[in-house]
Amino acid sequence: MSKKLTKRSEDYSKWYNEIVSMAELAEVSAVRGCMVIKPYGYAIWEKIQKELDKKFKQTGHENAYFPLFVPKRLFEAEEKNAEGFAKECAVVTHYRLKNDPKKNGKLIVDEESKLEEELIVRPTSEAIIWNTYKNWIQSYRDLPIKINQWANVVRWEMRTRLFLRTTEFLWQEGHTAHSNEDEAIEETKLINNLYKSFVEDFMSISVITGTKSESEKFAGAEETYCIEALMQDGKALQAGTSHFLGQNFAKAFDVRFSKDDGSLDYVWATSWGVSTRLMGALIMSHGDDQGLVLPPKLSPYQIIIVPVFKSPDDLVLINQYLENLKQQFNKLGIDYKIDERDNVSPGKKFNEYELKGVPIRLCVGLRDIEKKTIELFRRDEMKKLIIPIHEASMQIEKLLFDIQENLLKKSKIFLKNNTKIANNYDEFKSMIEDGGFVLAHWDGTDHTEQKIKKETKATIRCIDDTFSDEGICIISGKKSKQLVYFAKAY
Amino acid sequence: MSKKLTKRSEDYSKWYNEIVSMAELAEVSAVRGCMVIKPYGYAIWEKIQKELDKKFKQTGHENAYFPLFVPKRLFEAEEKNAEGFAKECAVVTHYRLKNDPKKNGKLIVDEESKLEEELIVRPTSEAIIWNTYKNWIQSYRDLPIKINQWANVVRWEMRTRLFLRTTEFLWQEGHTAHSNEDEAIEETKLINNLYKSFVEDFMSISVITGTKSESEKFAGAEETYCIEALMQDGKALQAGTSHFLGQNFAKAFDVRFSKDDGSLDYVWATSWGVSTRLMGALIMSHGDDQGLVLPPKLSPYQIIIVPVFKSPDDLVLINQYLENLKQQFNKLGIDYKIDERDNVSPGKKFNEYELKGVPIRLCVGLRDIEKKTIELFRRDEMKKLIIPIHEASMQIEKLLFDIQENLLKKSKIFLKNNTKIANNYDEFKSMIEDGGFVLAHWDGTDHTEQKIKKETKATIRCIDDTFSDEGICIISGKKSKQLVYFAKAY
Repeated sequence: MSKKLTKRSEDYSKWYNEIVSMAELAEVSAVRGCMVIKPYGYAIWEKIQKELDKKFKQTGHENAYFPLFVPKRLFEAEEKNAEGFAKECAVVTHYRLKNDPKKNGKLIVDEESKLEEELIVRPTSEAIIWNTYKNWIQSYRDLPIKINQWANVVRWEMRTRLFLRTTEFLWQEGHTAHSNEDEAIEETKLINNLYKSFVEDFMSISVITGTKSESEKFAGAEETYCIEALMQDGKALQAGTSHFLGQNFAKAFDVRFSKDDGSLDYVWATSWGVSTRLMGALIMSHGDDQGLVLPPKLSPYQIIIVPVFKSPDDLVLINQYLENLKQQFNKLGIDYKIDERDNVSPGKKFNEYELKGVPIRLCVGLRDIEKKTIELFRRDEMKKLIIPIHEASMQIEKLLFDIQENLLKKSKIFLKNNTKIANNYDEFKSMIEDGGFVLAHWDGTDHTEQKIKKETKATIRCIDDTFSDEGICIISGKKSKQLVYFAKAY
Repeated sequence: MSKKLTKRSEDYSKWYNEIVSMAELAEVSAVRGCMVIKPYGYAIWEKIQKELDKKFKQTGHENAYFPLFVPKRLFEAEEKNAEGFAKECAVVTHYRLKNDPKKNGKLIVDEESKLEEELIVRPTSEAIIWNTYKNWIQSYRDLPIKINQWANVVRWEMRTRLFLRTTEFLWQEGHTAHSNEDEAIEETKLINNLYKSFVEDFMSISVITGTKSESEKFAGAEETYCIEALMQDGKALQAGTSHFLGQNFAKAFDVRFSKDDGSLDYVWATSWGVSTRLMGALIMSHGDDQGLVLPPKLSPYQIIIVPVFKSPDDLVLINQYLENLKQQFNKLGIDYKIDERDNVSPGKKFNEYELKGVPIRLCVGLRDIEKKTIELFRRDEMKKLIIPIHEASMQIEKLLFDIQENLLKKSKIFLKNNTKIANNYDEFKSMIEDGGFVLAHWDGTDHTEQKIKKETKATIRCIDDTFSDEGICIISGKKSKQLVYFAKAY
């Protein structure tokens, strides 16, 4: 903890890596591109899981579990999907090791255990799931199927960064089956809205929403809806996606159902997911030069209590003094932790919990007992104040609510201040260089999109249909149906 | 649902497979030996997870996540562990597919993407975790570390059965690090007791506990504690294990810490786990010829309500009649489901929920409204009774408690009635043939153990130190320190 955190303005990327490490969220592992999620980081992920899971269930989804492996012949069935993931997938080819005859105590792959058909470690589960749904669906009475899975997936990324892009990551993937197109599209939108409200209400991050362009959409989808957040360095981060898959997977796996009129039709599909990438969004949205800043609803504990004591007797007195307050926290459902270590100074503890982004720190010494006070520190504003102990629980309950709101408010202002409209390509280039979202007219062609990407590194982050004013494409001068969001992105 | 369930007495194995399928718990997948856990089965697993997770956290454990893959050089570091799993592990050798130049639309492994070092899909995570702990532990101040992980693991089993033995399965694996042997042994025992109380209190299954023999213990452990349950066909099922790993992994990965006196020592370790195999134990412990029987604490919903109606108006009346009862269920935290399908007869619904093992079924028709009654059916006893609606919630709350207790009581009696003491080998063989646990004196040698296994298929299930009376080995006639538990096992 003695190492000082790099300032965001000095090196944002270094700052990010240091926070992940110093706040004990995650670390690189011995496996190329895979991470170890440490207990403090995992506790945040668990809170994310719990809240999302509740929302999925409230909207009629059930959890299930499908195999980790996808046999090659299933993997390749939906061509676009296969093409999208073929270049980055881990392939299991053997199922046994044997002793190395040349080196004692070492193992080698047993060539005799070669699989007849290779297994792909799932990069996403549409293939294995639609091959399963095939047997579950005969009639419209079997629809809709609305299933979610919490799982690990593997995509062989060349450049990895903790949480943001790792070879293995944790996620949830929803896979639904419907008897008609409208219902499937409604589901796709419902989930995208669910993601938006989760990210705003729990992560305190403001996002833009819309659909992806043809080149940015999910491999195998008809339409990809997304939520996009803006990080403090002005780069966008895709935080969640919800795909309308049309009948593509039903056709690839021959999943047909009899309608109420007796005719046969292919089933309509959606899939959607958010991943441990959200952890990256959380860190980069709220963190400051002192470390992580956690919204109270996702913090492993909302309160850290640091007792200032010189002897075990002092500590006993302090704990007696806190007894009533702790009971009130329990009653209010506020998670707190007391750090009673005697080999770490209060100052060092302060630094540690500032780094870890705990929303509120309470500090109590013998003088507080005399004065019937407690020292309160709110992490988001880095502000300290002394309050009467008898008012503490009431003030803290309100403060936690305020912190949650305050972070979202800041995020909204940041998003607003960093979203600009470019009227021509020169303006566009300079705005993109500055960072943030840039709204511009685009002629809808892949050619223009790729030219912009090549020249500015900006991609179309999303197309929000509420911006439906016609205009002129900033590149080609052709007619444009609407403004779309561009940004450089993670 | 028209298919009739095979009777246990006819073919227990077939009965098991049919329940798994007909109660919609799981099914075989397109991937050899891997299963799809269906929503109803997964909902039970989620309840198991939730309760265990609570117990782990209450005893000071934290969750974290470690990589799916283990590089070969780490996998082979602890020799016994490596030897134990080398013959049944999935090996990733490549990270890319490419288009098959010979077949349009097909993919083949891209040989250019061959990995320099193969990756093993974790069969268990001691290797990857101890390689990580190495960097976390310097001083006794860093100990203990008490981490649990919920994860999927892969063991390439030749003969698989849903839940009982699958290539991929879900589990939790705890991995703790301690500064001294006693503390590590205490932890190992604490967890074994935690498993025992979970299985008894939540799954209503009575178990025996003790340690494994040398040949049956975990590869790499000094001592394996276990809980063993007895299925209705007289075969034992290992339901959970807790391993004292000594300093084996610390030595293999060179994990040393400085003690408070400044000297260096290797760290002491434990690991422990239960898996989706528990689902198999649950099915086989309580199921009967009508299907699954679930203990209320783990049933996805405790009550199924079947309204008997001829018109939508009837249904409205019935729902009005139930309004107050439903509110009381909500208040009492009792999960219920109402099956309002109009294309399935009440009789078929009855069969369906009997198959699914829902603890209590309520049936309401117009006549019940007149009489102010409700029809109640308890699944464990297959008994029906009519009760006044105003007493229903109170009676049901108590009944759920009784069912949970009743199942455990039956399980205890079954275990007791099927545990015998053999005084000689002939008696032993005939008892083993009959099924159940057989307590017998054993001379402690591997030779005798293997002879018994070869001749009777019985293995030592566990050694319970409370049976410490000396005697004579039933095979060799040599001195025996105590009676040990034998059985044929899953």
